[in-house]
Amino acid sequence: MKFKVSCELEYEVRDNSTLIFNVNVAKTQNQQILEERLQLDPDLNFEEYVNPILDNRYIRINVPAGNLRLSYQALVDVIYEETNPATINEVPIAQLPLELLQYIYPSRYCQSDRLMRFAQSEFGHLVPDYSRITAICNWIYDNVTYLSGSSDQHTSAFDTVTERAGVCRDFAHLGIAFCRALNIPARFASGYAYKLQPPDFHAYFEAYLGDRWYLFDATRLAPLNGLIKIGTGRDAADIAFATIFGDVEMNQMNVEVECLETIPDSDCPEYTNQAISHQVS
Amino acid sequence: MKFKVSCELEYEVRDNSTLIFNVNVAKTQNQQILEERLQLDPDLNFEEYVNPILDNRYIRINVPAGNLRLSYQALVDVIYEETNPATINEVPIAQLPLELLQYIYPSRYCQSDRLMRFAQSEFGHLVPDYSRITAICNWIYDNVTYLSGSSDQHTSAFDTVTERAGVCRDFAHLGIAFCRALNIPARFASGYAYKLQPPDFHAYFEAYLGDRWYLFDATRLAPLNGLIKIGTGRDAADIAFATIFGDVEMNQMNVEVECLETIPDSDCPEYTNQAISHQVS
Amino acid sequence: MKFKVSCELEYEVRDNSTLIFNVNVAKTQNQQILEERLQLDPDLNFEEYVNPILDNRYIRINVPAGNLRLSYQALVDVIYEETNPATINEVPIAQLPLELLQYIYPSRYCQSDRLMRFAQSEFGHLVPDYSRITAICNWIYDNVTYLSGSSDQHTSAFDTVTERAGVCRDFAHLGIAFCRALNIPARFASGYAYKLQPPDFHAYFEAYLGDRWYLFDATRLAPLNGLIKIGTGRDAADIAFATIFGDVEMNQMNVEVECLETIPDSDCPEYTNQAISHQVS
Amino acid sequence: MKFKVSCELEYEVRDNSTLIFNVNVAKTQNQQILEERLQLDPDLNFEEYVNPILDNRYIRINVPAGNLRLSYQALVDVIYEETNPATINEVPIAQLPLELLQYIYPSRYCQSDRLMRFAQSEFGHLVPDYSRITAICNWIYDNVTYLSGSSDQHTSAFDTVTERAGVCRDFAHLGIAFCRALNIPARFASGYAYKLQPPDFHAYFEAYLGDRWYLFDATRLAPLNGLIKIGTGRDAADIAFATIFGDVEMNQMNVEVECLETIPDSDCPEYTNQAISHQVS
Repeated sequence: MKFKVSCELEYEVRDNSTLIFNVNVAKTQNQQILEERLQLDPDLNFEEYVNPILDNRYIRINVPAGNLRLSYQALVDVIYEETNPATINEVPIAQLPLELLQYIYPSRYCQSDRLMRFAQSEFGHLVPDYSRITAICNWIYDNVTYLSGSSDQHTSAFDTVTERAGVCRDFAHLGIAFCRALNIPARFASGYAYKLQPPDFHAYFEAYLGDRWYLFDATRLAPLNGLIKIGTGRDAADIAFATIFGDVEMNQMNVEVECLETIPDSDCPEYTNQAISHQVS
Repeated sequence: MKFKVSCELEYEVRDNSTLIFNVNVAKTQNQQILEERLQLDPDLNFEEYVNPILDNRYIRINVPAGNLRLSYQALVDVIYEETNPATINEVPIAQLPLELLQYIYPSRYCQSDRLMRFAQSEFGHLVPDYSRITAICNWIYDNVTYLSGSSDQHTSAFDTVTERAGVCRDFAHLGIAFCRALNIPARFASGYAYKLQPPDFHAYFEAYLGDRWYLFDATRLAPLNGLIKIGTGRDAADIAFATIFGDVEMNQMNVEVECLETIPDSDCPEYTNQAISHQVS
Repeated sequence: MKFKVSCELEYEVRDNSTLIFNVNVAKTQNQQILEERLQLDPDLNFEEYVNPILDNRYIRINVPAGNLRLSYQALVDVIYEETNPATINEVPIAQLPLELLQYIYPSRYCQSDRLMRFAQSEFGHLVPDYSRITAICNWIYDNVTYLSGSSDQHTSAFDTVTERAGVCRDFAHLGIAFCRALNIPARFASGYAYKLQPPDFHAYFEAYLGDRWYLFDATRLAPLNGLIKIGTGRDAADIAFATIFGDVEMNQMNVEVECLETIPDSDCPEYTNQAISHQVS
Repeated sequence: MKFKVSCELEYEVRDNSTLIFNVNVAKTQNQQILEERLQLDPDLNFEEYVNPILDNRYIRINVPAGNLRLSYQALVDVIYEETNPATINEVPIAQLPLELLQYIYPSRYCQSDRLMRFAQSEFGHLVPDYSRITAICNWIYDNVTYLSGSSDQHTSAFDTVTERAGVCRDFAHLGIAFCRALNIPARFASGYAYKLQPPDFHAYFEAYLGDRWYLFDATRLAPLNGLIKIGTGRDAADIAFATIFGDVEMNQMNVEVECLETIPDSDCPEYTNQAISHQVS
């Protein structure tokens, strides 16, 4: 499935500053970048770092006082694998690949250590397979109100589980915290999202089941097979789209996603009942 | 119903200290004290203060270094009024006696301001009468594990609602927080509790419905009509059985409650389905 | 000292609602109301409740859908007593009037129980008199940035002591929490404040020293002898200027304070080094 | 410097369980393991996973009901590099190796995002070199009481900075949080500690300065050049010495460290004023 994604970010930089962006689409075996352009105005040098395990791409720019505009465009071919959810089981701790252990530990915004009894009581009795993570997403969708401005950068799953309002990042954090509280590896994901209204960067999460990471989004705001991955991490702390060191203010942000499949409309991603992963066997 | 209650508290006082006790049974129109004895060893002077509105009795003792033993015994006649729950309604804010407003505001351990959406989502659709507070108590009983040692003096309703474990004080705080989040006046109560095992001071809560305060206890550890009130307050901060200023350690504590009704056993309080209040019209 | 105070509040009421206002100036022996006018548009009935101990005045209005404008004006004569701070001592717990005990207990926004060691470490070695509360106010002024929008209605002293930013309400909560952690009775106060820029309702705090409550304001935004008291309480939970039950939005708010002394300018309150209380012996 | 370290852990396992241990000494270029023995009783199979970047070694054991005893002994040669602290500078974000970015982001127990103003106010004006992290350690040592039992597994830097009491893990978390709040990469470290009394696993932290990680320990309970590293991570969540999945209780734990240098006593590590790192150029 081919998508054209773009973002345009404008900043007022009041003094020498360093900005780190994580807006580039991840290059993976199943997410090919056919074309890509990153432009800065003024035309500054930048440095790119790619996390060798997670494929996250970070751009560092040292910026003098003045305005900065970053424009990013990419033409991406994403191969989603669809799997019948009924065939996907959780992995017992006794067999879990040990490099995934870090994804069952609590993190800044996903205090799974404090949600153990809650998760056990709500989801502990459910069959330990894909349907349990679906139940978690349904619980979040049913109990948490998506409400712009109801949370801030300090809001964590421990807040959201009680305050019951948040945005995509909060929905993802809570999903991750519930999974980890049940010993299911889970991680935060950011991306461009087809059909998301209003257009913005999107946050969702991945849970490790069977032999791979599957995508989940408790907000139901975008089809899983319309997500173009930017990066993954323990939680939002790891993959902010922009991290600013200095006296800088954002003036504007535009994000766009277009589906480039021309033949039958139905080829463009629709909401699906299948389990979606990036891995292709 | 007549009860004999007693407590014995022993402290090691390492330096001149002030201790404030709230262990005396409240004297009210419907809770008569037939006999009462407070003994200190050594035989120190003490000062009593009775809150004119709440009837809480505080004893202040200035204690030199050494040991302190406090023994309290009382023979109490408590008149409970039983009411058919089906006849008891909540009071809309538009008609609530304004001196009760403080009981819908959040307090240290009952952060009702952060449980608004939670309470609305769980209990907002229920009929606004006595049965709604019963539903709150049932929810707590079903979802929170009574577990000695699972909480400490800093634990609040905001913790308990997610961590799902606590003791009687935590159960009461959560009940109060839910009520206040629904604009139902609620307050913390401490007392001696018939049948409580192991014997100890007990915490429960009162909610204002109709024209009076009704008793509730989400722990189900003692019958409501076997509670002998010590005091009430916004939350546990107001009515600790002992508040210590100085270098003091408690060595021992014993609490006992006996029912003195001799003829038919059934006169001694059993769990009841009636609404229980102290007020008698 | 005579002041003219006023406020004008406008609301859009979307459905039958109840609003409770605490904007009326307190009537006390030392704060006489020479003239006062409360107007509602539309001209609805309202009910007033005066707390018999604290003198807080609450106005309840049941409002149908539509707009509501509340206008309040008062001409007030406030008698401040000025005392030499060097003569004012703290009251040891052993001698504290027991009805003040509630003001050393923690409350929703003043979790003094969690600031014990902090307060001991910063202020524990200081002389237990007026100067210690001045030291607390100085610490807050020096360490916390007054920053509009940096906190919200859930922010408490436990947050502010670390996050180090807030508004007048947060400064007051932290001052109170520090006092209580040192066993000094302290309470929250709201009022109109002469010279406050921009004009708004103001929050400050009172600490009980010697034989009365003294005023303190860690924000240094208004002279203590230019404060016209609305009310006092455990913390902001008790004396919000408006508490809204229903679907209501505030459209506008104006607050004004004028000093009516005409002869020598210096009679109008200036910042003072004296201890200020409302009580006159 | 040669050390003999050992630990012995005994568990009662009530049902099939999985235990993951991180007690093995890390094998690195500068920490050679001369001899090592891990024994299980009963003699169960286990699986080892070594984190390829951090060198942490995790042992997974699937255990049937019964008792489990783990004994670990190692003879380790640790090469510490001593550097003159005066020559070590912080690395500006503009030049920081980008793979270290994760170590300036907040984590579960190190909420640096909420300590920004605090850290700026206390340490922001200091020279950005090694001495600033020393100042952080001194602040913690001076302001936080080392008190066994004063914290639990949920305690985080945000709690400790106000509650001012904790154990080695809390001291490390706070040091890390302060560093990250100042954009200094910092990570949690666990190890065996020579001279630690009573003997136990120890927690300390590392900060990245100049071209490497330096060791810091705000507890001052063990010399930096007497630390034998087990592992490092974002915070304690990553490198618990034991993580238990199942109904298991620990019955006993013994940890021992011996210095094996025989000739002159002074060769055994003493407290040092030099900066200590594991890296040798």
